[in-house]
Amino acid sequence: MHVDEKKIKSDNLLNSVKVVLVGTTHPGNIGATARAMKNMGILDLALVEPKEFPSDVATFRSKAAKDILEKASVHRSLAEAISECELVVGTSARGRTVPWPVLNPREAAEEMHKSSLNGKVAIVFGREDRGLTNEELGLCNFHVHIPSDPEYSSLNLSQAVQILAYEIRLSYLQDRHVNKEYWDVELANNEQTERLINHMDELMQEVDFYDVENPRKLLVRVRRFFKRSKIDVMEANIFRGLFATIQKKLK
Amino acid sequence: MHVDEKKIKSDNLLNSVKVVLVGTTHPGNIGATARAMKNMGILDLALVEPKEFPSDVATFRSKAAKDILEKASVHRSLAEAISECELVVGTSARGRTVPWPVLNPREAAEEMHKSSLNGKVAIVFGREDRGLTNEELGLCNFHVHIPSDPEYSSLNLSQAVQILAYEIRLSYLQDRHVNKEYWDVELANNEQTERLINHMDELMQEVDFYDVENPRKLLVRVRRFFKRSKIDVMEANIFRGLFATIQKKLK
Repeated sequence: MHVDEKKIKSDNLLNSVKVVLVGTTHPGNIGATARAMKNMGILDLALVEPKEFPSDVATFRSKAAKDILEKASVHRSLAEAISECELVVGTSARGRTVPWPVLNPREAAEEMHKSSLNGKVAIVFGREDRGLTNEELGLCNFHVHIPSDPEYSSLNLSQAVQILAYEIRLSYLQDRHVNKEYWDVELANNEQTERLINHMDELMQEVDFYDVENPRKLLVRVRRFFKRSKIDVMEANIFRGLFATIQKKLK
Repeated sequence: MHVDEKKIKSDNLLNSVKVVLVGTTHPGNIGATARAMKNMGILDLALVEPKEFPSDVATFRSKAAKDILEKASVHRSLAEAISECELVVGTSARGRTVPWPVLNPREAAEEMHKSSLNGKVAIVFGREDRGLTNEELGLCNFHVHIPSDPEYSSLNLSQAVQILAYEIRLSYLQDRHVNKEYWDVELANNEQTERLINHMDELMQEVDFYDVENPRKLLVRVRRFFKRSKIDVMEANIFRGLFATIQKKLK
């Protein structure tokens, strides 16, 4: 039984990971990414507004991973690509004005391993030249930073994918999480968390809370808090229920 | 003194590593290798009988790592390329008739780290299609195997280099015990978190939110959420500020 549980859990990790490429310019990088994924046993690829796809160059560079390209989903926004995900980790090279929790690739793989028990997890890679926008990074629960040399920190896209896929595979192989993290309630997914943040934003506007603070920064901080807090569905519903009750009282 | 010794040791690692590519067919892979190395702070490249070098394709793919290509040494045999090395680790995909000690990339990086105290260490990568010959593998102290999916184990050459270079860099960084977790705001202490929970309790009572749910359980869930969320002082103040504003509006 013990072994079986491990097996189920392990299978969950590789099957639960979705690699998301946002705004990729060079189709060769999409092909090289598919190959890097398949080498590590990860098969689910999502593309957000790729410049050129499908593409012969991508197919050529993917070598024996053409099946990944054929099954890849294409989306118009990152939000759409990750809507069903329990956990979203975004790659980030730059420091942010409002810092997000930053993990190294190994820690990120650990977090994804834990969350894979509950559902789908996404690892998001940005554009070759500009990475992810602040808005896109705000959709992530954690950021991951590859500890490259500060003198030359810009990795090729597929190389960054390779490192993360490698760490995910190591986590899968080592299966160090014999203790399943038990939780009584499902964690809120991306969409539910977004609805909660929007609801709080709405309420803050209604009571003119924004007047007293720098509005943009305030919402970014609320967003960061809820994104990293691993709030569960019932807790999210308590906040939303309270907010709705307050809104009714105010009218 | 202790710190200085460590520093010397660390510097030794990145400066002591020589990446050796044997019989590379595609010059693009040589360029991508140079970039992967430089991203991790490794600068010494040796080429054994490359099919085409120097090459415009290699230069283009190397991006900002052209200096590595310019300084790369070219050799007629692996034995010549590694002649001054203390330790030689060879990448190997296949099991050998006579098994060699096989390390995973992390263990290989550790071995290289140790040997770098004494002198130069080499990590050797074979031909794209056939890897290293038995004779070449016999020149190595250890073999290293990247734990790829057995269903599709053949990594692109520069991706294999990236993984090894990444592990070498991690070994180097761990030695310097960097990566203090940076956060812009102090985390809320116990008292501050308690005040936040009490404030939310108070508000929930004022708007009769408790009528609609099991009251005790509800507050326990709010408590559990804020307690485990690692909320920081500014975030706690945002919630408390909002709660106070709402309370004022309601009166």
